[in-house]
Amino acid sequence: MQRILSDQLPAHTGETVRLAGWVHRRRVLSKVAFLVLRDRRGLAQVVCPSAELPAEETVVEVTGRVTANAVAPGGVELVSPSITVLSQAEPPPVELFRPALGASLPALLDHAPVTRRHPSRRELFAASSAAVRAFRSTLDEFGFTEVFTPKIVGTATESGANVFAVDYFGRPAYLAQSPQFYKQTMVGVFERVYEVGPVFRAEPHDTSRHLAAYTSLDAELGFIADHRDVMEVLTAVLRSMVRATGVEGVRLPGTVPVLHFGEALEVAGAAPDEPDLAPEHERALGLWALREHGSDFIYVEGYPMVKRPFYTYPGRSFDLVFRGMELVTGGQRLHRYEDYLAALTARGEQPEAYASYLAAFRHGMPPHGGFAIGLERFLARLTGAANVRETTLFPRDLHRLAP
Amino acid sequence: MQRILSDQLPAHTGETVRLAGWVHRRRVLSKVAFLVLRDRRGLAQVVCPSAELPAEETVVEVTGRVTANAVAPGGVELVSPSITVLSQAEPPPVELFRPALGASLPALLDHAPVTRRHPSRRELFAASSAAVRAFRSTLDEFGFTEVFTPKIVGTATESGANVFAVDYFGRPAYLAQSPQFYKQTMVGVFERVYEVGPVFRAEPHDTSRHLAAYTSLDAELGFIADHRDVMEVLTAVLRSMVRATGVEGVRLPGTVPVLHFGEALEVAGAAPDEPDLAPEHERALGLWALREHGSDFIYVEGYPMVKRPFYTYPGRSFDLVFRGMELVTGGQRLHRYEDYLAALTARGEQPEAYASYLAAFRHGMPPHGGFAIGLERFLARLTGAANVRETTLFPRDLHRLAP
Repeated sequence: MQRILSDQLPAHTGETVRLAGWVHRRRVLSKVAFLVLRDRRGLAQVVCPSAELPAEETVVEVTGRVTANAVAPGGVELVSPSITVLSQAEPPPVELFRPALGASLPALLDHAPVTRRHPSRRELFAASSAAVRAFRSTLDEFGFTEVFTPKIVGTATESGANVFAVDYFGRPAYLAQSPQFYKQTMVGVFERVYEVGPVFRAEPHDTSRHLAAYTSLDAELGFIADHRDVMEVLTAVLRSMVRATGVEGVRLPGTVPVLHFGEALEVAGAAPDEPDLAPEHERALGLWALREHGSDFIYVEGYPMVKRPFYTYPGRSFDLVFRGMELVTGGQRLHRYEDYLAALTARGEQPEAYASYLAAFRHGMPPHGGFAIGLERFLARLTGAANVRETTLFPRDLHRLAP
Repeated sequence: MQRILSDQLPAHTGETVRLAGWVHRRRVLSKVAFLVLRDRRGLAQVVCPSAELPAEETVVEVTGRVTANAVAPGGVELVSPSITVLSQAEPPPVELFRPALGASLPALLDHAPVTRRHPSRRELFAASSAAVRAFRSTLDEFGFTEVFTPKIVGTATESGANVFAVDYFGRPAYLAQSPQFYKQTMVGVFERVYEVGPVFRAEPHDTSRHLAAYTSLDAELGFIADHRDVMEVLTAVLRSMVRATGVEGVRLPGTVPVLHFGEALEVAGAAPDEPDLAPEHERALGLWALREHGSDFIYVEGYPMVKRPFYTYPGRSFDLVFRGMELVTGGQRLHRYEDYLAALTARGEQPEAYASYLAAFRHGMPPHGGFAIGLERFLARLTGAANVRETTLFPRDLHRLAP
């Protein structure tokens, strides 16, 4: 008999079917016992004559007759069941049958291989997966091509700090902090590219918003007029990502408000000579955007160059603040070889160290720009998770290297 | 004026349009000069009155009138052009305008940021991207969920050898050789999962089929009867991947031939006590599958345990040989906790070293299995590339860490 899934039960009322999944919960009453079975689509109630039910998390097959019962979850239940154990289980370290997981964040993370099974967590990470699919499909529609670029690099050049060192056959190498150089290079091939992949930051601070590794959703496009073209693509991408998650109540208006950096400082009540926005400024901007524009999102453009990377086209970088926290950094990049030489030299850098990156510009690159979205941070802001570790399957940080 | 792309020219015959792209080629004849412009969709011929044309790889905008010309590529050309230079270029290190790239593989790789622009390379990597999209969309249809798992791990346990060491905030850590443990764990959450991501092998041999990092297309599914269920999903995935690339002449019959390991040794002319198939045996099997079954693919199942990893369900592993080379390894895995304890102990391993992996099995896992496809090797076999470095944008190997 073909296995069916829990959410298909109502369509099979009156029939005998086979379910398979985990024993999510056992409820033994005086005259009857219930086994709640969990599969990838939801829960199903099985009415058992005996109180001898397998322990929670045991993997079982259940064959039985589907019967309508208005008070059962989904309006149906399985009766006269025959239960086969596929795999025994010890009781889980955290009770998974409760509607809310009653454990501290460290405990949830230590036991992530099991706690991620909780329906609320499964739905959260399914939403994450749906958001990534929407990121890709929107960019596919816009004529972008997906690329896969190296994660081990020979020089720690992009920012210099916070890189992980790798022993590469006895030579020093580093984990890529972003696909920035490669995605720009690939604009020379495909004009419009994206990459979804891991990035690595040897982040020495232990905060609720930083991880040592995360999933970066990167895009880069050529033949733009300026950074506003990049912002337009980003807004469309975010709109489809939010929709795909099914999370409601997100205020993403048709036109997302944009402030110049100087205006943003003023709105945030910051000193006019600040070179960057601090977390409290971002929070103030988030509140302002909601109050004045009914928007959970606000763009800040025209950052001073001092806090932006050397490849930034002066005056044309932006951040996107989502509910009071920076979610995306982007902008137009330099595209002329001589501008790169000048920018690097002005920062006291040796252009020779960037030779293979600069080769792209030496041999003709169009005006271009792009952005990078942190997947885990997007999901945290979207769902109201206080810590980005809640929205990462198996987070890595200063202290955590397992599971 | 809105930019149009080269392949949209025929639809605009008689109109004045704007193109943008790279100067792919200049041809100066006695009375006329041609500029061939390259954009992400192809080439366009521009008829120029002057012989003063920008150098190859210069980025330009060209406004002109679209005119039918039966002998021009695509049947149209741009006349009376106005050309604006967006970005100057030095002559490329390898001539990109020739139909075939006339340089050695090392030279092509050294100059990859530029040589990947050649139309033949752009098409190759676009096919790769299309194959990945097909991998995902087929598995999405089958109810799989995408996951993102750690690439930095605390223990070099999966195979023990050929791992890259990372300095993780002063502690030893390693780059993941595969998402194997994590994808199995996630079967406990989603039942069916896939991941597309980088894997790292400190491969000490310099061969045409090995890389130090490659893109692995991993899938794992629960509630299977045996490894044949895994093979069925794999065959469907490969069928859609091959179709998506547009590469013709691939023989993938409705039923892919399957040989037991013992039969495979016999067909390959190997000694009956060989524990594994050598490259020459795979080549012989490829020829046999083509001759006897008209198939470019052949499964070999039932490998002896001695050459398979500890998590293998005895007798239920397989390899898929594509045109005489192993492309995919897969199979059913152990799913009972006590079987893992026994398998590890039998190999002289300490189960404690695998505690967070084993937690999933301790708390109930269904029968499951999966497979991993090497993207670059798939593309190499598919297109007849002799070296997997040809089908990797920026390869990493024993000697190469740049670009």
